[in-house]
Amino acid sequence: MKIESVDFFYLAMPEVTLEADGSQDALLVRVLAGGHVGYGECEAAPLPSIAAFVCPHSHGACQPVSASVLGRELNDARDIAAIAADVAYNSMDVLQAAHTFSGIEMALWDILGKARGEPVWKLLGYPASYAKTPYASLLFGDDAQLTLARAREAMARGFRAVKFGWGPIGRAGAQQDAEHFVAAREAMGPDGILLVDVGQIFVDDLERAATRLPALEAARATWLEEPFHSSALEEYGALARRCNTVRLAGGEGAHNFSMARHLIDYGGIGYVQIDCGRIGGIGPAKQVADHALAKGVTYVNHTFTSHLALSASLQPFAGLREHTICEYPAAPKALAVELTANHIQRDAQGSVYAPDAPGLGITIDAAAVRRYQVDTELRVAGRTLYRSPQFD
Amino acid sequence: MKIESVDFFYLAMPEVTLEADGSQDALLVRVLAGGHVGYGECEAAPLPSIAAFVCPHSHGACQPVSASVLGRELNDARDIAAIAADVAYNSMDVLQAAHTFSGIEMALWDILGKARGEPVWKLLGYPASYAKTPYASLLFGDDAQLTLARAREAMARGFRAVKFGWGPIGRAGAQQDAEHFVAAREAMGPDGILLVDVGQIFVDDLERAATRLPALEAARATWLEEPFHSSALEEYGALARRCNTVRLAGGEGAHNFSMARHLIDYGGIGYVQIDCGRIGGIGPAKQVADHALAKGVTYVNHTFTSHLALSASLQPFAGLREHTICEYPAAPKALAVELTANHIQRDAQGSVYAPDAPGLGITIDAAAVRRYQVDTELRVAGRTLYRSPQFD
Repeated sequence: MKIESVDFFYLAMPEVTLEADGSQDALLVRVLAGGHVGYGECEAAPLPSIAAFVCPHSHGACQPVSASVLGRELNDARDIAAIAADVAYNSMDVLQAAHTFSGIEMALWDILGKARGEPVWKLLGYPASYAKTPYASLLFGDDAQLTLARAREAMARGFRAVKFGWGPIGRAGAQQDAEHFVAAREAMGPDGILLVDVGQIFVDDLERAATRLPALEAARATWLEEPFHSSALEEYGALARRCNTVRLAGGEGAHNFSMARHLIDYGGIGYVQIDCGRIGGIGPAKQVADHALAKGVTYVNHTFTSHLALSASLQPFAGLREHTICEYPAAPKALAVELTANHIQRDAQGSVYAPDAPGLGITIDAAAVRRYQVDTELRVAGRTLYRSPQFD
Repeated sequence: MKIESVDFFYLAMPEVTLEADGSQDALLVRVLAGGHVGYGECEAAPLPSIAAFVCPHSHGACQPVSASVLGRELNDARDIAAIAADVAYNSMDVLQAAHTFSGIEMALWDILGKARGEPVWKLLGYPASYAKTPYASLLFGDDAQLTLARAREAMARGFRAVKFGWGPIGRAGAQQDAEHFVAAREAMGPDGILLVDVGQIFVDDLERAATRLPALEAARATWLEEPFHSSALEEYGALARRCNTVRLAGGEGAHNFSMARHLIDYGGIGYVQIDCGRIGGIGPAKQVADHALAKGVTYVNHTFTSHLALSASLQPFAGLREHTICEYPAAPKALAVELTANHIQRDAQGSVYAPDAPGLGITIDAAAVRRYQVDTELRVAGRTLYRSPQFD
């Protein structure tokens, strides 16, 4: 098969706020090859990601992502890896390229799976796909009472695990933060899995992060996620050594395999969280899963958008029976729900599985794409390099 | 002072080829604050970098760079650091943001220096600025004879140091590569400083890179630059342990302080090469210089474009007397030469200095900006987010 076309669809809610909710817009990618249609989704910042696909080249190591993708052969997994290597090399100086390619790479796997009639996790070498325990991703409330209410609501909806993130944590003192952790544990009962995400709030301040550890351990949090900037490996490592029961989690910002590997090898994290929409797609995410397995670290997906992204993010660890925790967007915006015609539903046990269907197993809802599409145009030197394509 | 405006000027040669020559286009940044005008230059990929400044926000941690810059107070170095921290946080999920902000950050230092009547290196805390030995950055010839000719020409132009890069190295066998190293040494005589840049050609293949070490050491190369992908810390470290006389150099791809630090701490490099147009500007580059000094590593600038970028890149290590090697674009395209009205010339000893003038000490040639400007327009949802501004 030959890659015939790559189209980007910039979608957004009518209003996009500044809350820490990544489901408010989306960059859908559609790839055509050999009569098959594949879909993927880039995480975050649609406009720079589109620009990185169409921009004029600056020199040989600063080419648009399109230069390494269009017209390429796609017949097996090695072709995807070869294209990825060319993107890394030819777009070396286009920082945004990894995010742009992530959605394309997912679509290439989707096509390969559809052409073979197999789910992507089988193409990755997994003989079986195992149940995952989805956690609800929620934002901390403005006060502890609101956090308590949100945790109760999630438990009532049948979640056995909840991750609270962002909001006021780290902005006031350790005592105020502790009240939120206590409230969440209270609502979830003794058996609920409590995960805490502080969204890099401590930047590289080891001591401020460390003051939160006693309350997190008292509330029996399973992990503390992203205490620092994703590159602060020394601080990750130092904080990890000060943890007793809680473990560190991180990796969502990784835009290549090495970055995730360094968080494991140097940063001492216990859970590595990979967003296939940022790391370059499913291939490098599977590399991380392999490395995590070898190092006794648990792989977790990072997903805050649609079920297309969720399916892609489940594939790299679908076959790892013991790696059960799974991020599941619990309260996404309408766009992220309506974008796909089918969804990865929780079963009677509250578990989810990577779809047992060809490719990523997700169907796009054409009407939703048209409804949320944002008209976009990029012009350079009198030429239109990009104009929002029609979804048909 | 308040930051009143930030304007981007996308400039390009009439023809931009795929050779490894970063001087074929430029993204000039002009900032106005308190009646002063400051200039900076982002390295590479103008279109995605502009997009990262003007894009609609996707959520709170995925805001355009503009959101953290426009209207901010600029009175001292701490203000620049505070703005940089906000860009890192508010644009956490916009991968391109570091490249976009790099040019802005230079311009902020330029303004601060002009307002105080002091060169930037003084604002960075250096009491004096020391001579640097510029090396000519050249591309390896297609064959060893051409490499020899290019080295002879550089020596005839008075350079005492030459860096050869890219071209055929690593694409054929170690023997062919060795012929280039021998030719370069032959042309340069026993005292010339020979530097070799292989532009990540070995990706993460330790053994292929290691086969080049004997010839490099026989030719008395001072450093081997970028054998691997900039994130391949393990391979850097392993190769460093196999070097006898040659040392590894790297860091130009660093888009934050931590990445450069990891190449030093984990990668074992002996020379850290920082491009102020990528790492986030002059502030994080100075952090790298401080760390390098503490670790016995030599700081070197990475500069392949205009003398505006060169001045910015000299500031972070201007006051380090022992760190003398300096990258100097030896054969830039006309755009990179004409962009500035003044230039950092080599003196009678062949040395260069960071300008002893307010700010970055470089004047922009308005006619050149107009001559090379590329008409660009970005439209989203019926709004023009960017249109090439007039340079006046």
